Amino acid sequence: MPVPRYYQAKAKLLDLLNERQDNTPFPPERALSDLFGMSRATIRKALDELVLEGRLVRGAGRRGTAVAPRRPVHRLGLDALVRDLVTRESTTVRSVAQDLVVVESVLVHGDEPIGVRSASLRVSRFPGLARLYDRTTPLPKFLMDTYGFESTAQPQCATTLATPHVAARLEVRAATPVLSVTWLSHDARGQAAGRSAVLLRSDRAHLALPRSNTVEG
Amino acid sequence: MPVPRYYQAKAKLLDLLNERQDNTPFPPERALSDLFGMSRATIRKALDELVLEGRLVRGAGRRGTAVAPRRPVHRLGLDALVRDLVTRESTTVRSVAQDLVVVESVLVHGDEPIGVRSASLRVSRFPGLARLYDRTTPLPKFLMDTYGFESTAQPQCATTLATPHVAARLEVRAATPVLSVTWLSHDARGQAAGRSAVLLRSDRAHLALPRSNTVEG
Repeated sequence: MPVPRYYQAKAKLLDLLNERQDNTPFPPERALSDLFGMSRATIRKALDELVLEGRLVRGAGRRGTAVAPRRPVHRLGLDALVRDLVTRESTTVRSVAQDLVVVESVLVHGDEPIGVRSASLRVSRFPGLARLYDRTTPLPKFLMDTYGFESTAQPQCATTLATPHVAARLEVRAATPVLSVTWLSHDARGQAAGRSAVLLRSDRAHLALPRSNTVEG
Repeated sequence: MPVPRYYQAKAKLLDLLNERQDNTPFPPERALSDLFGMSRATIRKALDELVLEGRLVRGAGRRGTAVAPRRPVHRLGLDALVRDLVTRESTTVRSVAQDLVVVESVLVHGDEPIGVRSASLRVSRFPGLARLYDRTTPLPKFLMDTYGFESTAQPQCATTLATPHVAARLEVRAATPVLSVTWLSHDARGQAAGRSAVLLRSDRAHLALPRSNTVEG
């Protein structure tokens, strides 16, 4: 299979990008098109992909792109996500329906947002939650201490596109692909009590999975 | 925060989509633009997102879109991925460098590709691999039986954009976001012997993670 033009362009742009310092302006589409003798549409497609991957940052409107600051990718453990042990900021609690409260926080590493954690909880199971929750205690610990709620969860992992709401909190463009870890919480009697999701910026955080000791390739 | 226009458009398109049968043509950009009184650029952005999410399929060239067949999402276990126990097809073995062989398969469910598994292995550690491997035995079992190779792996999970090569195997457009599970293989003495990756179509497969029994929200 021949390598598509935009992918050839991407390889060239990556070489160019790797020679440049963080935060320096990247040449505009037209200049790159002239430099490589490729159409502007081809260059644009390659630039778009580098923006989605967090290698380039696009300015507002038509102000062109700049080299994204290189950051080490943070490895997050599943257990820390589920138990809400990751550093977080701006925790909000809001009623979204008759019987539903959403607790949402931005997960941070250094001074950067790396994820958004949200839990949708049934008010009838957790009466007074919005009033009682101090917004600093890890949520599972709070639910245990206050309501005696202990649960099992079977998380699953997928890719999704950031909604405008999530994108604003992660400081990325809407529709940027993010890693999603979601789970339902059930109490000891098997009753569903809530639904949780963590959405991670893939250019800033990876999910570390449990070690596998099987034979493998 | 106001809801962006394209996201309003997406909600309207989803309503329209949900009324239609699998594989039926979806109205063209221009008709949708007239119907909702929104610009074609706005409609296009919403359509693009539905294509990336696997809800619409775009024809070659300018032939418009159609409703993607609804399929149940397959839940894959991490262990099955690492141990290569998922149904697979078209396994190939190719030398890509002096000391490197790549074993690649397409993971299938029903009659559809849901993922691509590849393992890059050092020839010096696995002499004769390309000649000896039968392409049907799960790779880890083959490496164990043939070379006595048993390893531990610490997988991690992220989001990435499908390369043209991977996209062709998954039957999606290049740069479609996919879920990646990657790991390094080390032998008992801690020596690195290879690198493996499974890339999953997120509209067809999710990764089931180990059950968490901690208190959680």
